[in-house]
Amino acid sequence: MEITKITKDVKNDSFKMASLSPDIRNSALAAVSAALCAQADAIFKANAEDLREAEKNDLAGPLLKRLKFDRQKLDDAISGIDSLIGLPDPLFRTLLARQLDDGLRLYKVTCPIGVIGVIFESRPDALVQIAALCLKSGNCCILKGGSEAANTNRVLYGIIAQATLKSGIPKGFLTLVETREGISELLKCHESIDLIIPRGSNEFVQYIMANSKIPVMGHADGICHVFVDRSADIRKAVKIIVDSKTQYVAACNTVETLLVHKDIAEEFLPALKPALDDRSVIIRGCAETRRIIDCPPAEEADYGKEYLDYIVSVKIVGDLDEAVRHINTYGSHHTDSIVTEDEASVEQFMLLVDSAGVYHNCSTRFADGFRYGFGAEVGISTGKLHARGPVGLDGLVTYKYKLFGDGHIVSDYAEGVRLFHFKDL
Amino acid sequence: MEITKITKDVKNDSFKMASLSPDIRNSALAAVSAALCAQADAIFKANAEDLREAEKNDLAGPLLKRLKFDRQKLDDAISGIDSLIGLPDPLFRTLLARQLDDGLRLYKVTCPIGVIGVIFESRPDALVQIAALCLKSGNCCILKGGSEAANTNRVLYGIIAQATLKSGIPKGFLTLVETREGISELLKCHESIDLIIPRGSNEFVQYIMANSKIPVMGHADGICHVFVDRSADIRKAVKIIVDSKTQYVAACNTVETLLVHKDIAEEFLPALKPALDDRSVIIRGCAETRRIIDCPPAEEADYGKEYLDYIVSVKIVGDLDEAVRHINTYGSHHTDSIVTEDEASVEQFMLLVDSAGVYHNCSTRFADGFRYGFGAEVGISTGKLHARGPVGLDGLVTYKYKLFGDGHIVSDYAEGVRLFHFKDL
Repeated sequence: MEITKITKDVKNDSFKMASLSPDIRNSALAAVSAALCAQADAIFKANAEDLREAEKNDLAGPLLKRLKFDRQKLDDAISGIDSLIGLPDPLFRTLLARQLDDGLRLYKVTCPIGVIGVIFESRPDALVQIAALCLKSGNCCILKGGSEAANTNRVLYGIIAQATLKSGIPKGFLTLVETREGISELLKCHESIDLIIPRGSNEFVQYIMANSKIPVMGHADGICHVFVDRSADIRKAVKIIVDSKTQYVAACNTVETLLVHKDIAEEFLPALKPALDDRSVIIRGCAETRRIIDCPPAEEADYGKEYLDYIVSVKIVGDLDEAVRHINTYGSHHTDSIVTEDEASVEQFMLLVDSAGVYHNCSTRFADGFRYGFGAEVGISTGKLHARGPVGLDGLVTYKYKLFGDGHIVSDYAEGVRLFHFKDL
Repeated sequence: MEITKITKDVKNDSFKMASLSPDIRNSALAAVSAALCAQADAIFKANAEDLREAEKNDLAGPLLKRLKFDRQKLDDAISGIDSLIGLPDPLFRTLLARQLDDGLRLYKVTCPIGVIGVIFESRPDALVQIAALCLKSGNCCILKGGSEAANTNRVLYGIIAQATLKSGIPKGFLTLVETREGISELLKCHESIDLIIPRGSNEFVQYIMANSKIPVMGHADGICHVFVDRSADIRKAVKIIVDSKTQYVAACNTVETLLVHKDIAEEFLPALKPALDDRSVIIRGCAETRRIIDCPPAEEADYGKEYLDYIVSVKIVGDLDEAVRHINTYGSHHTDSIVTEDEASVEQFMLLVDSAGVYHNCSTRFADGFRYGFGAEVGISTGKLHARGPVGLDGLVTYKYKLFGDGHIVSDYAEGVRLFHFKDL
């Protein structure tokens, strides 16, 4: 009940957010950056409390690592905000300017989406990144963080909320929801919330997607492939696969299945095996693979699995078409890479594979907003509508059509009294 | 069961569609245009059967008018296709080209959405328009038309399917679903269908939106407003309102509520009343309105109604902010117009009103793909994600990120061996 009321107020403030000048939004970002710097000790103190609590509760190592918000992470967050200030304004961009007839002018102009609900797990640095992206793009943001990071999130929220309010940003810009029931209540507010961005485990994202009428942007699975084509450079292929699998094994853009062209398999697999052995990666191979190298078998179910672990499945395919079919069938439309020296194969692969990222001769791990030069990202979308792949400022705006007339009416055109004369301005 | 199988085959063909050159797609459009022209008699004959059946079943006048497919509608459809051929290709457009580092280049390139399900009521000309837009944009299209138009749709489908198949377009490009159960089965195919576009009544669209995991693009309500500001030119305001209400009373972009600034109401309403009386439009007024002119009262519920009839509600507001709040609360985010001679009011109105179309001194009836110069439209979206307002070719494409490397791996960047050097190409 209370959350419904809060989101309605936020919705009303979202209209004001849409009218703020870039100068106001950028000075507010600068104020946030300065406030975070000035109040570093309070942040570290709150984070230490969260860490103590987490250790008491035996939180797993990787989660502890994500939860930690130290000087390095604060510096990264602050320099992220500073770089956002320097990026061109995503709002008020004219995407189309067209004269429809004398005195009748149409403009398609970018504007904020409105109210964005972000539900995320432990990482407190995500809070700072997301709040900054929403501020730059003129969106109101309702945050629901993980309970492990409650103290850190509360302090970060307080600092950002105070700094922006002082800078003339409406109060509704940033809201922190702290109760556990908050999530299911938020998911019901489809009249006030325009978009939900969930960041967390596969099950978590699927739960969100299945339980709200609000559009959800993000991804559940990350089942990425590397296809080693007939004409691949074997050294490059081994290097790319080792990186794609082991550079950060728990990421969504990590490779899960390797597809190997039958004409190169005999030469390639024996070169790959020791490199993966060195990193303790277990290969699960198809029958043909196991004729060439010694490894446990891959079941059909393996091809649809996001291992998030030191395991990779290997399948030998007859040609590029079979590789493409496999990727489009079993993949999650996230990021898939071809290793080849043949330009025609590159072109075919990139046209036919239906994924947000299609790569040539490089690691799937490059799928990331920072690595694409977006400054930051609110997440990665495997949906094909609105935003696809890493989502930065561009994915946080929509547009409206503005039409300027001087008493123009449609019946004049319907009756042929006037004719449209389209002319791009 | 059968529909699930069909949509899977269509999905497979959608990957091929994405690789067709603009030349192949444009020649196929030309072949469709020629075939429709050559087989006009067969179309008219089938349409005559549908019309006979509809008259027998006492179909309402406006529905009969929509169902009719005569020489004029065929000529319009054919000239629509011919103009589509001339439009720039919506695919393979580079939206971003960036060097991330030496030898590592990122491109954001447009591509088709994939498989689009279109569910529409009686109008057979919609079938031609939608099929042509999907062909131009490289999408596969699954059509479910109204049973009233079954004969016409079947003949049109046959002509288009045959002409495109002969032109080298995959079979899966166009599918016609004829059974009534087809709709609920289509709505379940979220693994094969990327987008549903429903065209029909409010209840119909809401049913579709509530019953599918597939993203839906379109609009249920069309509750549009005209705000007559303090400094409005009264003659313009009357002319714009008469057109917005009566030019085509059953359209989604017809005005339903007028908001009148209190400072102009005494002068304006007596000028408006006779003009609306002339067109038999009934005014339902707020208490203040009824102190100035004689009319039945507007209830609170009137402000949320899409009359689709010769009725308009009138409310007097204190200022522009109140008008904006009313529109953002009761409106459907479709199209809203301000009549004023004050530039500052125009700017505020356009920034603050959260609708797909925000207009100045012109009729809400301009909200239409053809009138915007898009050539044709698949519908109008009141959603804020992906496409907003009239949806033409741009709304039928998405993009993918293509990354070209030469053995580039992420660990080199993570360890500081290499640094990103972003440079737009």
